[in-house]
Amino acid sequence: MFLGAIDIGGTKTIVAVCDEKGNIIEMENFPTENGDWMVHFRITAEKFIQCVNKLQIDINEDLSGIGINVPGMVDENGILIYAPHQNWRDVHVKDYFSNYFKTDKIIVENDVNSCAVGEMIFGGGGHDFLWITISTGNGGAIIANGQLIRGNQSCAGEFGHLKVEFESPRKCSCGQYGCLEAHSSGTAIKEQFEEALLYDLNLKETVLNKQIKDEKFKIDAYGLSLLAREGNSVAIDIFTRTGMYLGRAISYGVNISNPQTVYLGGGIAESLDLILPAIIMELDKCAIEECGKVTICKTKLGYNAAIIGASALVYLQKDILANL
Amino acid sequence: MFLGAIDIGGTKTIVAVCDEKGNIIEMENFPTENGDWMVHFRITAEKFIQCVNKLQIDINEDLSGIGINVPGMVDENGILIYAPHQNWRDVHVKDYFSNYFKTDKIIVENDVNSCAVGEMIFGGGGHDFLWITISTGNGGAIIANGQLIRGNQSCAGEFGHLKVEFESPRKCSCGQYGCLEAHSSGTAIKEQFEEALLYDLNLKETVLNKQIKDEKFKIDAYGLSLLAREGNSVAIDIFTRTGMYLGRAISYGVNISNPQTVYLGGGIAESLDLILPAIIMELDKCAIEECGKVTICKTKLGYNAAIIGASALVYLQKDILANL
Repeated sequence: MFLGAIDIGGTKTIVAVCDEKGNIIEMENFPTENGDWMVHFRITAEKFIQCVNKLQIDINEDLSGIGINVPGMVDENGILIYAPHQNWRDVHVKDYFSNYFKTDKIIVENDVNSCAVGEMIFGGGGHDFLWITISTGNGGAIIANGQLIRGNQSCAGEFGHLKVEFESPRKCSCGQYGCLEAHSSGTAIKEQFEEALLYDLNLKETVLNKQIKDEKFKIDAYGLSLLAREGNSVAIDIFTRTGMYLGRAISYGVNISNPQTVYLGGGIAESLDLILPAIIMELDKCAIEECGKVTICKTKLGYNAAIIGASALVYLQKDILANL
Repeated sequence: MFLGAIDIGGTKTIVAVCDEKGNIIEMENFPTENGDWMVHFRITAEKFIQCVNKLQIDINEDLSGIGINVPGMVDENGILIYAPHQNWRDVHVKDYFSNYFKTDKIIVENDVNSCAVGEMIFGGGGHDFLWITISTGNGGAIIANGQLIRGNQSCAGEFGHLKVEFESPRKCSCGQYGCLEAHSSGTAIKEQFEEALLYDLNLKETVLNKQIKDEKFKIDAYGLSLLAREGNSVAIDIFTRTGMYLGRAISYGVNISNPQTVYLGGGIAESLDLILPAIIMELDKCAIEECGKVTICKTKLGYNAAIIGASALVYLQKDILANL
């Protein structure tokens, strides 16, 4: 049994075939064409067929289904309601690929929801957990009672827009103020790094020295994590605040759904050691005792969480679930 | 088919028999004995048997089951983990009543969770909603995908301890600061009323005049609602703040689980007209657009929500669910 997997991301698209345990057997990635969705979907479908052909297997006979991630909200009919990065609206993703591949075993899901499904099916994630991505922006997903919680309009898990600061809120790309994404995303860390450079001459000198030694050094979240690890107090402060606000958002999530684990994915999760103490301190203050005793860790799926998650979507088909 | 229902509350216990649509046929209530749980359970069991006998029916033959509410956290084995008001811990509720009534059709649940189950089964509450009680304290429950979300340690739905104020937080009975319960419960309203009386001589005079005309007038949330309805600005301000903080907590809930409806129960829900404008204004600021378009209304079950909810628990038994 093989699982088809397609991950259409904001900048990159991946097509893959996995075995029944979510191990990637064949994979290819290429840039996402952000213009006409139909142009990009056609390229994607052809790349996927090439991927399948390399393995000398047949889409209809050898694949149990094809899971497809899209970077936006998806309704229960596999329609992409809105993808902010591409500005795609009301795209009939399931219909398009069903027609192209001549199969009805197409499952379309939001990319973060897929990561959570992957964590449950292949990562041993358990029956009750949160999945939060900390990357350019923040997203989230909830598994409760062993099921993905999609909500009434498929918008559940919007952790990035939980309000975590009311007195000195930063403006968020969504137009509101004080969102987690405005305070604790890769973008927020980069912005705070840039702001600190405006008033802190010591930091500016440190960065200039860094850039002389290493021309790849960038003023971004990764660059700041290098400074924090060297003991730079401004960098440590920014990561501590990032963790504190994440702790607030997580406290809302754990008080509401009482998960066993919170999995963190996305680039900033690689700096978990820099933010975890502040997360835990804020959880101690903000979560009720029983709910605050939650395990917080990086995704077990690693860097390929999204494409592995896409392959896991195949297991959400009812006939397959019944045979699990 | 009849449904047995027992609601053991903090101050009052109700026993009832309902028809299959949750209509109360026979009911009796009596004070909760807050000492030894076994003494109170025995009284409760005997009162329930009297209730059943009045209808000349048999517990085992005519009841599809007996739903029992307790005022605390309950695990999946029907064990009451902790009831703060009575200070009962690790009470084997299901075992006790199963032995007493000689039936295994006993379903034990936290009282607010029961209200939510009742709203789903008898109130037409839908598949995705939140249920928040605003009374002496605040509690909550979540229905998602048509299921009650209990969480990993049966502690899901702790809306009362979501943090809604970080700069000027009020101390909560839980020991933490800034909880919804510390800002937007019946107790919080009463406390703010008392505080206002300390510095506002006009309010003090208004209250004294009220008490001369009506000796039943009390300095509590209900008393304050009477003043607010007469246009008293201090009273209106307190209810507006109450609504604002509720709006914050609801924004966390809707961004996380994207429900269709938020049902409010408990005494303060009777003053929904006084708090709803502030709830909606805060939701506009704090919830993402799609999730903020949620209906906020009073429970459809009315004053008897808890005992009707207890009867609805009977439907959670797997064999009955399968036949629904």
